[in-house]
Amino acid sequence: MVDGEQKRPARRRKSGQKSAKKLLDDQLGWQQPRYADNPIEPLSADQVEAIHEMSLRVLEEIGILFLNEEALKILQQEGCDVDFTTQNVKFDRAYIEAQLQKAPAQFTLTPRNKEKQIAWGGRDFTFGQVASAPNVMDLDNGRRVGDRKAYQDLLKLSQAYNCIHFISGYPVEPLDIHASVRHLHCIYDKLTLTDKVVHAYSLGAERIEDAMEMVRIGSGLTDDEFESQVHMFTNINSSSPLKHDWPMLDGAMRAAKRGQAVVISPFTLAGAMAPVTLAGAITQQNAEGLACIALLQAVRAGAPVVYGAFTSNVDMKSGAPAFGTPEYVRAMQMSGQMARFYKLPWRGSNANATNAPDAQAIWESAFSLQGATSGGANVIYHAAGWLEGGLSASMEKFVIDCEMLQQIIYAQKDIPFTEDDLGFAAMEEVGPHGHFFGADHTQSRYKDAFYSPLLSDWRNFESWEEAGAVWTHDRANAHFKQILNEFEAPALDSAIDEELQAFVAKRVAEGGAPTDF
Amino acid sequence: MVDGEQKRPARRRKSGQKSAKKLLDDQLGWQQPRYADNPIEPLSADQVEAIHEMSLRVLEEIGILFLNEEALKILQQEGCDVDFTTQNVKFDRAYIEAQLQKAPAQFTLTPRNKEKQIAWGGRDFTFGQVASAPNVMDLDNGRRVGDRKAYQDLLKLSQAYNCIHFISGYPVEPLDIHASVRHLHCIYDKLTLTDKVVHAYSLGAERIEDAMEMVRIGSGLTDDEFESQVHMFTNINSSSPLKHDWPMLDGAMRAAKRGQAVVISPFTLAGAMAPVTLAGAITQQNAEGLACIALLQAVRAGAPVVYGAFTSNVDMKSGAPAFGTPEYVRAMQMSGQMARFYKLPWRGSNANATNAPDAQAIWESAFSLQGATSGGANVIYHAAGWLEGGLSASMEKFVIDCEMLQQIIYAQKDIPFTEDDLGFAAMEEVGPHGHFFGADHTQSRYKDAFYSPLLSDWRNFESWEEAGAVWTHDRANAHFKQILNEFEAPALDSAIDEELQAFVAKRVAEGGAPTDF
Repeated sequence: MVDGEQKRPARRRKSGQKSAKKLLDDQLGWQQPRYADNPIEPLSADQVEAIHEMSLRVLEEIGILFLNEEALKILQQEGCDVDFTTQNVKFDRAYIEAQLQKAPAQFTLTPRNKEKQIAWGGRDFTFGQVASAPNVMDLDNGRRVGDRKAYQDLLKLSQAYNCIHFISGYPVEPLDIHASVRHLHCIYDKLTLTDKVVHAYSLGAERIEDAMEMVRIGSGLTDDEFESQVHMFTNINSSSPLKHDWPMLDGAMRAAKRGQAVVISPFTLAGAMAPVTLAGAITQQNAEGLACIALLQAVRAGAPVVYGAFTSNVDMKSGAPAFGTPEYVRAMQMSGQMARFYKLPWRGSNANATNAPDAQAIWESAFSLQGATSGGANVIYHAAGWLEGGLSASMEKFVIDCEMLQQIIYAQKDIPFTEDDLGFAAMEEVGPHGHFFGADHTQSRYKDAFYSPLLSDWRNFESWEEAGAVWTHDRANAHFKQILNEFEAPALDSAIDEELQAFVAKRVAEGGAPTDF
Repeated sequence: MVDGEQKRPARRRKSGQKSAKKLLDDQLGWQQPRYADNPIEPLSADQVEAIHEMSLRVLEEIGILFLNEEALKILQQEGCDVDFTTQNVKFDRAYIEAQLQKAPAQFTLTPRNKEKQIAWGGRDFTFGQVASAPNVMDLDNGRRVGDRKAYQDLLKLSQAYNCIHFISGYPVEPLDIHASVRHLHCIYDKLTLTDKVVHAYSLGAERIEDAMEMVRIGSGLTDDEFESQVHMFTNINSSSPLKHDWPMLDGAMRAAKRGQAVVISPFTLAGAMAPVTLAGAITQQNAEGLACIALLQAVRAGAPVVYGAFTSNVDMKSGAPAFGTPEYVRAMQMSGQMARFYKLPWRGSNANATNAPDAQAIWESAFSLQGATSGGANVIYHAAGWLEGGLSASMEKFVIDCEMLQQIIYAQKDIPFTEDDLGFAAMEEVGPHGHFFGADHTQSRYKDAFYSPLLSDWRNFESWEEAGAVWTHDRANAHFKQILNEFEAPALDSAIDEELQAFVAKRVAEGGAPTDF
């Protein structure tokens, strides 16, 4: 785990070429942020206990469907009450509690660039970019289905911003690559255009196994070395209510077997796939999550898992999902309490249900981020670029979100508080008729005294208007294009690159993965 | 103080006219919100103590300038170390501490409509609209200097939204009314277009005395009745560093004498009028505030005062004020700790430094609101419509802010948590193959289960696009015009109205107030 801020590595330059200042030279350095604040906890200890107890009752009396033969067999061997006809599994509460004891409270994930190691758990927090959007949008080209070019562009932004700590699922689905081989090209792009911790989808055996093999190659590890440490992660969603699907369970078990992290994220929309009450939706989220955690601890005791929380509400007029609502904020904070009750890292999201990078998108995102971070989320998905309930990745929103993420990180830094910081000498020097611009106290500190934004325009109205009265989304449009222009891929050993390319070529020749999942 | 939500009064209709649903019929009811969450406290108890101690040292060793003869005389009578040449006053720490004991921790303010009574202190919180902007802007007419029409329009919005609890300073300065009589027409408009608690400026004797007289008339009170309860408030800013100006001190003392509330808000921009460190800027804010609170408690023991916090930072590149920054968030939360240390209600703001109602304005506002509310602010100024560091009132931003304010209020409501809310029966009924839309558990709750937004568009992209792909700021533009169209002034006894008009006419005939302050 990397503590504190790190110096950015010197950029490689062609000999004789002058150093030009880049747009992101002033961003916050790479760092592992940590919460200074205690989390907001809307539930009493009794209420946390009540959700726990009711979840166990759901697992004991109703059960969870596991649509996966291997999972059913494992759980039968573990002594659970398995019905192979309905595929329903009922769990004894003592079993669930024992399994939970095996999961680590905190762990690190090490990508191919060890300097970009991250930690999940405790007070550490991390952001990942928008994932799994079928569409991409920007103000020049509008909304369109994703392709590899857009996919790569979003990876480049994810690499360029230090406030993006891990590379989550595909930021946009590159639909111009055939589904059978898409994962090969996509993981190759992730491993070459970024050097951060990557995610792989759990969509059947081949995809997750290929991804693990490529991450192993990318880091130059033996099988044993790969399995002895967490290098990557997968995410699975339950098929709420009360059901886990085959391909996700398969991928999760394969990742767990090899010691890689699994984020278990029930998608419990209150009023649709879960009870309309927050207490009920969180109870269901909890039951679905605990059942899968129990399974994965049976697959490998100590498997690194993350308590995923994706509870939100629907618009009761239309049934449309809503995000960044007061319900969402509370669901995030309540989920944090449950995760801490189980001593597990937890995952939240920066979500919204808006169709453009406009004011609604920003307040929904700001509230979502507030819910997740004030709730102490360790892993925050979709932190940059998510729009439209996840149906679009927005280039401009990506830039805007990164400005917000940086500010959230910065606000958790220590507040300088020496005797001299209290400023008596400065006040005495300046007195009632002066100002502090020229004071020694100011001059010795001003360069690093305050957060320096990337996108904000703080000029007065007249100067702003003279410069074209550019609104923030248009500035974000110019920003993302400049960042893409300036992008340089992180260094990668050419032998490793060749090995990755050879692996992709071989697996493409073999036909990749089945597409009938 | 009004607890919980109240039914909106039936609207008056012309006989035979059909009731038409208005845009704001679905807004949250009038209520006194209360924080469910504990405040975020970045400072340790020792650090709070250190700021307190250092502030007292500033007051003892450096002192504060009081540019007001009467204030100097009072403080001399109180035994303070007054220098009438420099107008500097040094305070003994025991005196400050004794004076602080006299100020109430919590009080109510009762406007002419007693149903709109509000409470300041403890866990109660309230929002007031943008105040003191010289300009107004909307998307149809752009930015222009304020006039009475715009002033009245902003008052109407302030009255229409239940999430605006008090009418702060002039939302925009009506420059088409001569400064000598502006306060008379403005207070008249406040008292007739709204029925909420109003503010009056402290700009010399006549303005505040006229305002108090008009509020007394508006509520139909005798002098004794007026003075026995808090009905209105004024706000004063120190002339940082370490200085209180004549007209503000004069107004504050006059309000205190008559038992009306005074909000004391040092304007301590770190790096400009205060030390560049947050610890130093808060220390200075604290010293300036405590000195004035001590004076007002000498004027009238038990005078209702509010600890005002307006510490933010400047952009060190340009010297321009910045708001909604990480420093601002922390300054708000730190101020909350100081106010609670002194057992005083405290004031924060929803501030930003943006020139248009765009993404930056929203994230700066969202962070400002988060700082103020997570810090437990009781009185939140500029909560709706502030743009451009206070130089403009924006009609669209007003609407957008009210959506955010409603969500903040709603998120602090109790989370339903009965046994039935935990949803076991619903999960059992729905099972793993159903959904919860039709469940009894949902049907019996869905109408009030979730926050219902006024401005959000949650339609899917295709429907949104078909309907014209309207961005939020354009929806806000349509909203504010519709709300103004639908506006009905609150009921006012015609005898009181006549008395107010007569008072205004008399004072206008007398020439109003001097303009050479």
